[in-house]
Amino acid sequence: MNVHVPRKQLSESLGHVERIIPNRSSNPALSLMRITLSDKTMTLSGSNMDIDMEAQIPADVEEAGQYALPAQVFGQVVRALPGELVELNFKDTELDISSGSYATKLQLADPTNAVSLEFPETYEGSLEASQLATALSHVRYAAAVAEYQAIFRGVKLELNDQKTRAIATDGFRLAYYNLAQPSGLDCELVLPARSVDELTKLLGDGEAKLSMGDGQLTIVNKDLKVNVKLMEGTFPDYNRVIPSDFPVSITLDSQQLADTVSRVAVMADKTANNRVDLFIKDGSLQITAEGSYGRSQEGLEVSQEGTDPEIVLAYNAKYLMDALNPLSGDLRFRFSGTTTPSVIESLRDPNYLAMIVPLRTG
Amino acid sequence: MNVHVPRKQLSESLGHVERIIPNRSSNPALSLMRITLSDKTMTLSGSNMDIDMEAQIPADVEEAGQYALPAQVFGQVVRALPGELVELNFKDTELDISSGSYATKLQLADPTNAVSLEFPETYEGSLEASQLATALSHVRYAAAVAEYQAIFRGVKLELNDQKTRAIATDGFRLAYYNLAQPSGLDCELVLPARSVDELTKLLGDGEAKLSMGDGQLTIVNKDLKVNVKLMEGTFPDYNRVIPSDFPVSITLDSQQLADTVSRVAVMADKTANNRVDLFIKDGSLQITAEGSYGRSQEGLEVSQEGTDPEIVLAYNAKYLMDALNPLSGDLRFRFSGTTTPSVIESLRDPNYLAMIVPLRTG
Repeated sequence: MNVHVPRKQLSESLGHVERIIPNRSSNPALSLMRITLSDKTMTLSGSNMDIDMEAQIPADVEEAGQYALPAQVFGQVVRALPGELVELNFKDTELDISSGSYATKLQLADPTNAVSLEFPETYEGSLEASQLATALSHVRYAAAVAEYQAIFRGVKLELNDQKTRAIATDGFRLAYYNLAQPSGLDCELVLPARSVDELTKLLGDGEAKLSMGDGQLTIVNKDLKVNVKLMEGTFPDYNRVIPSDFPVSITLDSQQLADTVSRVAVMADKTANNRVDLFIKDGSLQITAEGSYGRSQEGLEVSQEGTDPEIVLAYNAKYLMDALNPLSGDLRFRFSGTTTPSVIESLRDPNYLAMIVPLRTG
Repeated sequence: MNVHVPRKQLSESLGHVERIIPNRSSNPALSLMRITLSDKTMTLSGSNMDIDMEAQIPADVEEAGQYALPAQVFGQVVRALPGELVELNFKDTELDISSGSYATKLQLADPTNAVSLEFPETYEGSLEASQLATALSHVRYAAAVAEYQAIFRGVKLELNDQKTRAIATDGFRLAYYNLAQPSGLDCELVLPARSVDELTKLLGDGEAKLSMGDGQLTIVNKDLKVNVKLMEGTFPDYNRVIPSDFPVSITLDSQQLADTVSRVAVMADKTANNRVDLFIKDGSLQITAEGSYGRSQEGLEVSQEGTDPEIVLAYNAKYLMDALNPLSGDLRFRFSGTTTPSVIESLRDPNYLAMIVPLRTG
């Protein structure tokens, strides 16, 4: 049967679903995209077991039906189409795709082989989609990479009637972002960092409807539905490691600090934690690094406060750069001690906090 | 001793020389950059054995001297500098680099370890640098990749008192580009394709002075001097394989043909030469492809000439795309037969010719 759909819309929705579908998988069913035709809607769906995704496209549909095809090939064809409108003619074993002067026949797969997805009927929570994306994207860098304990490789969401908070930590650094907006949900959950990467790409304008299910969080934003599998395990009690007493504290422009750290770090020893040294005294911040090729240093004037007149610390330059990356405008950098965690807060956006543990020196 | 030099100029010249210097090499001397200080000039030089390069930078120099340092580290430092002016203070074993509030110390190497380069005193030929780059970049794609006979992996330059021609071929396709400009040289030489890639990046405006030496071509363009090692061996007699009799010939827009081939080729079988089929008859060009996922086709109206009413051919879609890539505006596509070479010429730029051998079908 025939379906008519605007190319731009098909291409966009297909792009989202295609990206999560594995190109090669030990389970061939996972590389299939399911196409469901119903009254005035064409639905594309697929899964990589961590994320289920469904995209609805308004379309001129002649007859309902279920089909499946290799997602990547369909994506390549659709992206190449010359016309503004696409005509899809679904037959038993093949799909005719035509647009402008171009026509192609794609082999269809048995739809009973494709993964079948389920989404909740009702959504008890909601957040502004762009706000949720902001919170996730501010903290995601602090999640651990593969080597660490599994739960550290996730981003935690704390949802209650007061606020919404996203947190990530790998034990050496931590970042959280607060949304004043409560979601209507009251729960804590941990999303795999890779699923968070997909979510931040998908979330657009408008409302993100939320539903907590058995081991998964479902998010609906515009024409996209996403089930994200949750991580199991206990997220560390991070609040108790964030210090509250800071003998030294400085205020300076975040971009200036980031530029200086990146310049000085050129000389840092990549095999020794990318170490840069900070020395703060009398409203001056000296940053130095030393490696096998030589030594570099740069000084910045800062506004200094606190009970102690000076402090000496060392950080992994990459961790420092990561923590500064989401910032703009002035920041406050607060030091609890030479070997105890330091805290970076934005004066422009008080929702963001980064904590970073100094390197042990000497 | 002290040298003052504008950061932008140092960064640009350093970028050129740094790019050819190997980052890691079994011969550590090759990863060093030599710095020669003389009256009002700082000269950077290095080699990867295929290309020698020397860049001259006007600089405020206090005392002449020879130094050497790891090229990549120097490059990283210079790119990161904050100020407009760079002060270099060369000492016996280290180099102090400062710019704005930033300062670094780089370990120097023994300059006697760095490769010592020689360039000719006189240049008997010259071409417009941008024209030489145009000729090389039009044909470079047709050079063979690693698997083929060595000489096919080069780009030939034919220099005589009539014209200058660049040619590349891998036996399945060929491209040449003619420059009406004679160079003043009378010789034939073959440059390694990878050296050609570097040359096309380096050549800027103005004159390219040329000198043929023992096994190398030297090119001087503005403040850059380059020795390119020549390839040894006999380049094939390509002229005799370019057909002159074409029973069918079509004229059409190059971009339209490229777009159509790229769309249809989505279905082409990557394991079977990326084959696309062309069928020309009655001013119509039908392009089709078939692979394990399905079949695609698209038709174009063309202006057709010749003695034969129709022709059927197949090409490697990638080869066809490569041949079309340098073109804009209308092209003439001429067919000598179903299994004998076809020729593509630009109606906008008559200097370019591409030849492509059809795939054997059936």
